[in-house]
Amino acid sequence: MTVAGRLREMGLELPPPFSAGNYVSAVTAGDLVFVSGSGPQLPDGGFVTGKVGADVDVDQAEEAARLCALASLTALQGEIGDLDRVGPIVKLLGFVNSAPGFNQQPAVIDGASKLLISLFGDRGRHARSAVGMAELPFNIAVEVEMVVQVA
Amino acid sequence: MTVAGRLREMGLELPPPFSAGNYVSAVTAGDLVFVSGSGPQLPDGGFVTGKVGADVDVDQAEEAARLCALASLTALQGEIGDLDRVGPIVKLLGFVNSAPGFNQQPAVIDGASKLLISLFGDRGRHARSAVGMAELPFNIAVEVEMVVQVA
Amino acid sequence: MTVAGRLREMGLELPPPFSAGNYVSAVTAGDLVFVSGSGPQLPDGGFVTGKVGADVDVDQAEEAARLCALASLTALQGEIGDLDRVGPIVKLLGFVNSAPGFNQQPAVIDGASKLLISLFGDRGRHARSAVGMAELPFNIAVEVEMVVQVA
Repeated sequence: MTVAGRLREMGLELPPPFSAGNYVSAVTAGDLVFVSGSGPQLPDGGFVTGKVGADVDVDQAEEAARLCALASLTALQGEIGDLDRVGPIVKLLGFVNSAPGFNQQPAVIDGASKLLISLFGDRGRHARSAVGMAELPFNIAVEVEMVVQVA
Repeated sequence: MTVAGRLREMGLELPPPFSAGNYVSAVTAGDLVFVSGSGPQLPDGGFVTGKVGADVDVDQAEEAARLCALASLTALQGEIGDLDRVGPIVKLLGFVNSAPGFNQQPAVIDGASKLLISLFGDRGRHARSAVGMAELPFNIAVEVEMVVQVA
Repeated sequence: MTVAGRLREMGLELPPPFSAGNYVSAVTAGDLVFVSGSGPQLPDGGFVTGKVGADVDVDQAEEAARLCALASLTALQGEIGDLDRVGPIVKLLGFVNSAPGFNQQPAVIDGASKLLISLFGDRGRHARSAVGMAELPFNIAVEVEMVVQVA
């Protein structure tokens, strides 16, 4: 099944492209695509905002990370045209807007990781870091950036 | 026009090389150059320091990000010799030393991004993340790291 | 001398593999290996935890960074089989769980950098950023991620 088919089957839609400044959504270098940091875009055009561990709980933050992964796929598709060209998702860096004392960043970023594995299977298995930020742009709860190899 | 010529035209100078520890300014792997994190070096040898949103305002921080980009170009030039060999600036990661509640990291890091686009044109258009840090080395206001493709 | 021999000579052992979620320890793309974020694993299976500059002093944090580098080598060895295949350690990103006002992140991450240079010689000289985090997973004191070129 194609990635587009799997997305439909899961009832998921990619959000529209979004940029917060003077940069592009993704750049290709050889067979690697470096994808810009993506936030948790909601269907209404807003974002999931707030500090995880205070305003946003772990389950909500995991869902926000999943939304970040979908927004990353929008950026990736804009660059490579066809998500079926995705080889391994090489590396993911997950930034969690963390309330003081919140230390479950891996559980949050699993929301992005699980979605990628569901969509891409073994090609979705990636290296990863998950870290706790003092602040994020527009107070978004989570931000995710990726490096992807394409065939 | 060469990049050196464009820098002169804009009245800009690259700062001297700087290192804060046991690492090198840049490493080449194939046609990618990974540039170390660079801070906002001032002509007098000091750095722009302080929390953005408290000690440093957005305009000052945007100028600091521009200084980080210039310091990154010093590192890059030291590695590749000639800045006219720069292919796409592939990826930039911008760290903003953020006061509580400061969420305009993209506006700050635009200071680096705009300079790169001014100097390199379309080759300067990069993927990017901009995030808010609890602390940075020596309390610098901004730090920028880059991945660059060279011809 | 092999890297394994040098580790023995230094009285060091690599810790067992560890993962905190739905990701893999390292992914190879061409001749680059992207290694997941690694924490300061202790021989007893625990981790060095706490805020650097408050609960953990600079010397303890430098030792923690060294433990992170050893854990990164476990991940790398799992991916490439033989650490003697390591070409340049290309890039290291060091995350320091920082108490308010702590700004010696480079001295902390030097613990990882010096170990890599001791083990790999010139091939261990890498580009680097060292930054101060609000929080880290499980409250670990330091986390390190790496990009490595292999022969």
